[in-house]
Amino acid sequence: MPELIFPLDSSKKFTDQKIIGHNRYHPDIPAAVQIRPGDTFRLDCREWFDGAIRNDDSADDIRDAPMSCVHVLSGPIAVEGAQPGDLLIVDILDVGPIPQEDSGPLAGQGWGYTGIFAKRNGGSFLVDQFPDAYKAIWDFRGQVATSRHVPGVSFTGNIHPGLMGTAPSAELLAKWNAREGELIATDPHRIPPLALPPEPKDAILGTLSGEEFDRVAGEAARTAPPRENGGNQDIKNLTKGTRVFYPVFVPGANFSVGDLHFSQGDGEITFCGAIEMGGFIDLHVDLIKGGMDTYGVAENAIFMPGNVAPQYSEWLAFSGTSVTLNGKQRYLDSHLAYQRACLHAINYLTKFGYSPEQAYLLLGAAPIEGRLSGVVDIPNACATVYLPTAIFDFDIRPSARGPVKIDPGIGAPKSPG
Amino acid sequence: MPELIFPLDSSKKFTDQKIIGHNRYHPDIPAAVQIRPGDTFRLDCREWFDGAIRNDDSADDIRDAPMSCVHVLSGPIAVEGAQPGDLLIVDILDVGPIPQEDSGPLAGQGWGYTGIFAKRNGGSFLVDQFPDAYKAIWDFRGQVATSRHVPGVSFTGNIHPGLMGTAPSAELLAKWNAREGELIATDPHRIPPLALPPEPKDAILGTLSGEEFDRVAGEAARTAPPRENGGNQDIKNLTKGTRVFYPVFVPGANFSVGDLHFSQGDGEITFCGAIEMGGFIDLHVDLIKGGMDTYGVAENAIFMPGNVAPQYSEWLAFSGTSVTLNGKQRYLDSHLAYQRACLHAINYLTKFGYSPEQAYLLLGAAPIEGRLSGVVDIPNACATVYLPTAIFDFDIRPSARGPVKIDPGIGAPKSPG
Amino acid sequence: MPELIFPLDSSKKFTDQKIIGHNRYHPDIPAAVQIRPGDTFRLDCREWFDGAIRNDDSADDIRDAPMSCVHVLSGPIAVEGAQPGDLLIVDILDVGPIPQEDSGPLAGQGWGYTGIFAKRNGGSFLVDQFPDAYKAIWDFRGQVATSRHVPGVSFTGNIHPGLMGTAPSAELLAKWNAREGELIATDPHRIPPLALPPEPKDAILGTLSGEEFDRVAGEAARTAPPRENGGNQDIKNLTKGTRVFYPVFVPGANFSVGDLHFSQGDGEITFCGAIEMGGFIDLHVDLIKGGMDTYGVAENAIFMPGNVAPQYSEWLAFSGTSVTLNGKQRYLDSHLAYQRACLHAINYLTKFGYSPEQAYLLLGAAPIEGRLSGVVDIPNACATVYLPTAIFDFDIRPSARGPVKIDPGIGAPKSPG
Amino acid sequence: MPELIFPLDSSKKFTDQKIIGHNRYHPDIPAAVQIRPGDTFRLDCREWFDGAIRNDDSADDIRDAPMSCVHVLSGPIAVEGAQPGDLLIVDILDVGPIPQEDSGPLAGQGWGYTGIFAKRNGGSFLVDQFPDAYKAIWDFRGQVATSRHVPGVSFTGNIHPGLMGTAPSAELLAKWNAREGELIATDPHRIPPLALPPEPKDAILGTLSGEEFDRVAGEAARTAPPRENGGNQDIKNLTKGTRVFYPVFVPGANFSVGDLHFSQGDGEITFCGAIEMGGFIDLHVDLIKGGMDTYGVAENAIFMPGNVAPQYSEWLAFSGTSVTLNGKQRYLDSHLAYQRACLHAINYLTKFGYSPEQAYLLLGAAPIEGRLSGVVDIPNACATVYLPTAIFDFDIRPSARGPVKIDPGIGAPKSPG
Repeated sequence: MPELIFPLDSSKKFTDQKIIGHNRYHPDIPAAVQIRPGDTFRLDCREWFDGAIRNDDSADDIRDAPMSCVHVLSGPIAVEGAQPGDLLIVDILDVGPIPQEDSGPLAGQGWGYTGIFAKRNGGSFLVDQFPDAYKAIWDFRGQVATSRHVPGVSFTGNIHPGLMGTAPSAELLAKWNAREGELIATDPHRIPPLALPPEPKDAILGTLSGEEFDRVAGEAARTAPPRENGGNQDIKNLTKGTRVFYPVFVPGANFSVGDLHFSQGDGEITFCGAIEMGGFIDLHVDLIKGGMDTYGVAENAIFMPGNVAPQYSEWLAFSGTSVTLNGKQRYLDSHLAYQRACLHAINYLTKFGYSPEQAYLLLGAAPIEGRLSGVVDIPNACATVYLPTAIFDFDIRPSARGPVKIDPGIGAPKSPG
Repeated sequence: MPELIFPLDSSKKFTDQKIIGHNRYHPDIPAAVQIRPGDTFRLDCREWFDGAIRNDDSADDIRDAPMSCVHVLSGPIAVEGAQPGDLLIVDILDVGPIPQEDSGPLAGQGWGYTGIFAKRNGGSFLVDQFPDAYKAIWDFRGQVATSRHVPGVSFTGNIHPGLMGTAPSAELLAKWNAREGELIATDPHRIPPLALPPEPKDAILGTLSGEEFDRVAGEAARTAPPRENGGNQDIKNLTKGTRVFYPVFVPGANFSVGDLHFSQGDGEITFCGAIEMGGFIDLHVDLIKGGMDTYGVAENAIFMPGNVAPQYSEWLAFSGTSVTLNGKQRYLDSHLAYQRACLHAINYLTKFGYSPEQAYLLLGAAPIEGRLSGVVDIPNACATVYLPTAIFDFDIRPSARGPVKIDPGIGAPKSPG
Repeated sequence: MPELIFPLDSSKKFTDQKIIGHNRYHPDIPAAVQIRPGDTFRLDCREWFDGAIRNDDSADDIRDAPMSCVHVLSGPIAVEGAQPGDLLIVDILDVGPIPQEDSGPLAGQGWGYTGIFAKRNGGSFLVDQFPDAYKAIWDFRGQVATSRHVPGVSFTGNIHPGLMGTAPSAELLAKWNAREGELIATDPHRIPPLALPPEPKDAILGTLSGEEFDRVAGEAARTAPPRENGGNQDIKNLTKGTRVFYPVFVPGANFSVGDLHFSQGDGEITFCGAIEMGGFIDLHVDLIKGGMDTYGVAENAIFMPGNVAPQYSEWLAFSGTSVTLNGKQRYLDSHLAYQRACLHAINYLTKFGYSPEQAYLLLGAAPIEGRLSGVVDIPNACATVYLPTAIFDFDIRPSARGPVKIDPGIGAPKSPG
Repeated sequence: MPELIFPLDSSKKFTDQKIIGHNRYHPDIPAAVQIRPGDTFRLDCREWFDGAIRNDDSADDIRDAPMSCVHVLSGPIAVEGAQPGDLLIVDILDVGPIPQEDSGPLAGQGWGYTGIFAKRNGGSFLVDQFPDAYKAIWDFRGQVATSRHVPGVSFTGNIHPGLMGTAPSAELLAKWNAREGELIATDPHRIPPLALPPEPKDAILGTLSGEEFDRVAGEAARTAPPRENGGNQDIKNLTKGTRVFYPVFVPGANFSVGDLHFSQGDGEITFCGAIEMGGFIDLHVDLIKGGMDTYGVAENAIFMPGNVAPQYSEWLAFSGTSVTLNGKQRYLDSHLAYQRACLHAINYLTKFGYSPEQAYLLLGAAPIEGRLSGVVDIPNACATVYLPTAIFDFDIRPSARGPVKIDPGIGAPKSPG
């Protein structure tokens, strides 16, 4: 294997490791490791809640998930010679669950989890319909996931990192804090919140300590949203073999990775909608000097997906438009249209015996496709969601025979919020 | 070929045909043709503007496109025995440009067009960046499209109908008019408008005439948006071999089809962003009696895409988040995120020599994929757009060599709005 | 549509058409039509037996099929400026059944056929196991085929021409006749024959007549085998969008096309194993001057398959090795290995209720993949055959539950040889 | 990871390991490990020559490769309750190079090799054209292979086991020895040999010793060819996620695995034409009791390929027919037709600057497709070989511009046989 430059011991907390990562974005978090363009290396990655979620049949851990702790990230990795204005080429050579460990208490040790977050703890894409916390545990066999909480399906995971990105410059960080603070200020007590402001509590900042820690912890951006630096993009297509190009904002690029997913549907709709896990990622990096200007990539990642993602050829798809559930017309709102498409899929699956929560968890975790089909036909956007029919043990296609009824089993554990 | 039950003579206007279709939705538009479950048949379809757009190098026709005339639809087709509550199964057996005619003045006769609509005439997805009218003419060679206005690319069209659907019931129509009227009322003089109210001018209502025509024309819904009945969904994946299931709201279902596209990218972003054309469509229909309740499909189409859509395996992708161009943070807005991703792609393509408008037209027409990648990571949604690299005559991948420069040719004709 | 330069009237025999094609290869058959590099055009094509096979439930027509009449070809098409040594670029823009005719007595009018040829009339790939004549009629609905003689399956056809090619030079023809004659001479009375010598009976030679006809008919090569000029390659991957490069051996290239297939599995194993039909093909041609030498293509076609062939992602595969059914070891014989793999597949399918002949006909016609998996592991070659599971109405995967039993229906008509 | 039940220490010879595998087939080789249906486990696998081939620029090791030593296999694995007549279900959960070791002297430690075997040492598919030994070393970066000996290409490996299978019964073994002996007897001194008889020299037989070793070594079958038990099938499609069904011939099934390949083209044409390596394989096994009769699977494996094999969508293909290079006509010989197609591809690639041997090595190792396109068109079979164009750094498509010329670099090392 490539040299392991960021090791994690599965028996220890993220903050007790030999090298300490971070869970905030700030230009002054020191690089944990130094590499050179052309290097190939391995990083261990901890699951985003550092082991707070257990392989059991209760959703209390999801309900109480400590949002101030996320995402525990491996890095920053400084790339020798990288300068603001460069493009950092990152090749994902391999990515998977914790190597050589397939049982244990840590997500990534042969299992992972999907959670519907409670409204009081961040909520999810369909928070109004699903205000309570739910959990599904997924077992891994090779690249295939199955769940005792969502029976009747098995699928090949599109394993990928949910979060990769470079460090922001001071200017960029200031911009983030300003614009997100402005948004929060429009409804500061909203539940769930509109955005997450800097939060010193539970901040992990690598080797920083003392006053410098306090200063940075007070300024550093949360890792929840994707931003100009890439970050928590949750793009399910960043599978093995993918090449990503990130803009560089600070000397050294200060690249970080985390939030590995065993599988995810487009949108990661239940909030921790992917199958969350710890694991490893093997990367190769290089630079395009001055590439941001040369290619006009001032922000956000561009990428070329790998060619070994799971292939499906038969799909059942649902469409939605930008009308709210209670009949209000919205103007070209693709976000709402996708909510409606997902609700249609969920409703359909309940006709086969699933609970709505099982169906919702499935859409979060399985390799579903979510497309922006129509975005201009005033006033309705049209979004579509595609379920691969082969992941079901039974025939989910509509026909004159009507749906078969499956045994939903023990169901998905619930913890009222 | 299957029996042609809705013929169109290419030399005549839509309103001078033997059978007259319609361009509004209303339950009282009489069925033009009657069929039975299990029937296979062909419909001719006129391009959505009934020939107003010409194969030339001026965008005046796009600038002046008569929005009150669209979409000219083939139908309604009444299905014997169909009742409200049924699901109508529609199999797309074949669909293509006007058969046996590959030259002539009508889009679909060997050519089609893509337009960026001017802000004053409806606008487009990126209306603030592209307020003026532009046009690209695409020539068909087999299933491949090329354009003198967008050189350097050729691609296999994902030929599909932009619009298919059943007739609304009176109740459903009333609901549409109420909710869309309410939206319009929030900003009635907006340019472009928020929605399109009923418009008697240029209404085509099949065989209706006299007072009944006037009444229906005053109530009938415009066909621009997709709604509960399917309609103008502009789902590029409804290619040959697709099976669609539509809810039935009126006896006979009263099914209609139109707005054929030679190719389209996800979103149809330039408004008439697909390659618009007239042509034919061969359908087979059947019923699932009571299927709306059995399968929980109360609205919008569900479908199973066909298996002969063009295949690409290498993509260059761009991501965007829900921050406006002038730096305002929006809350989980996938629509905005997709706008930003598309703008990134456009900006990138200009580095190779395209004008922004050429790039924009290309994204509308080529088989690009648009995905809702992350929809829960507050406050930023993440959307992604994927360009198949094989459609370009040159290498569009980023590298240390920098972009090649192509000759943009005569460019896309412009008509200031 | 492109200009129809080789029309066929479905109500008339091949020899009663306005332009007469040919069914033999000879450099002196005059070109039927002249075109220029860069031209796009349509050819009508007659099914290979010129209508001798009927849409009924008897296999007598297959048993008595007049081999001396095949293949009726559309051409020769002379390409202006083509010279020996050039490569002729042929783009398949479109190909399909007889346009605008979907019922009638001619294969291609909404239906096609697959035949197992009797041992006495040419035999087939598994002639020893299947010595008698059988037939299956396939009905077309859009691009999908089903058969009353092989129930329980439906599949999207990989429509393609079985035969395309250029005319041989006199030298090349002499070489063919010499080497094939030599082979025949090793066992001249074999049933089925080793090869087919020139046969003046039933020869069709375009406009030739009189003594010239007699001379050419006596020398001209039969069209059954593929050879240096392309010819009857029966490559199922020459679907719409394919670009083929043919060596040019005579001035004008004298290109011909025929033997259209609605679908075919790799090998076309039952002899007329594809779904045979008449229809049309739209082509675009161009030249690479001197391309044979430039690219080292002295013989046989090279090609780039199109990107709209039917996609399947789940397969059940069978393997075979080069041991005969009665236990004899052959040395690295991939042909035999593929026979054994196909026999395994047939045997397997009979466990679900099919007759062996139904299974054999299915393998000939459906889009199965046949691969040369191992060719060096002395003494056994290993060949594999892949069946797409989605073409079956039932689950054909092996499991502890055992196979379901289908109703084989009326079975495939048989005519003892 | 799953429990490692067959470990191999990379620093020791195959015969110095804690558990000793085997390199011959015989029912009396004792099981090395015992498992149960439903178990998931890992096997380490040694490259087939047990380290005889080095990562250097000489082909002497290929020329002198000790054929009597192959294939070193991990097993036999006894499955509790397996009885003759059952089908053994083997799920390939994962397979890859030697885990956690990416540099070192053993193939599988970050590199692998492809060899053209010399005529005097077994030869290859095109032995008459390539009588000498050649070698190419491939370096692995993630799942991608590149070679200093074959520049200008890189491709994602279709990692798979070349050899898996169950133990033969005594009756089956006797049958093998009889039929292969009979073949050898037809030309016992042929170079290369027609088949490989039992060979006590270098036999490895697990824990057997003394007289029992000698008896078994004298009877045991060589592992080179695929046979009724699966064995060395070299099916490139047995990638991760594949489910294979093997017939069981002895109590316990006595299953073995070896000959891992990082990548291979259809046919493995250069003899050790795959990219040979050691590594690991994770398997899950189960039984279908009595499945051989239930499903009619008396011999050879049947399988369902996984869905994460590398995807390519653009191919350049070559065809061949069953005429020898010196112009002899053979009767329906697909083996010969594939040889001719491969020779055409090799010849074509030399026009771009490759040596014939580089091209040959590439066809062996890259994920090329080899299809039996036509097998009935007397007297010529037609075989086709497909090269994915995306694996080349340059454009390999034919055009009027002519081929680019690449720098072939140091070339492939040669050792005259």
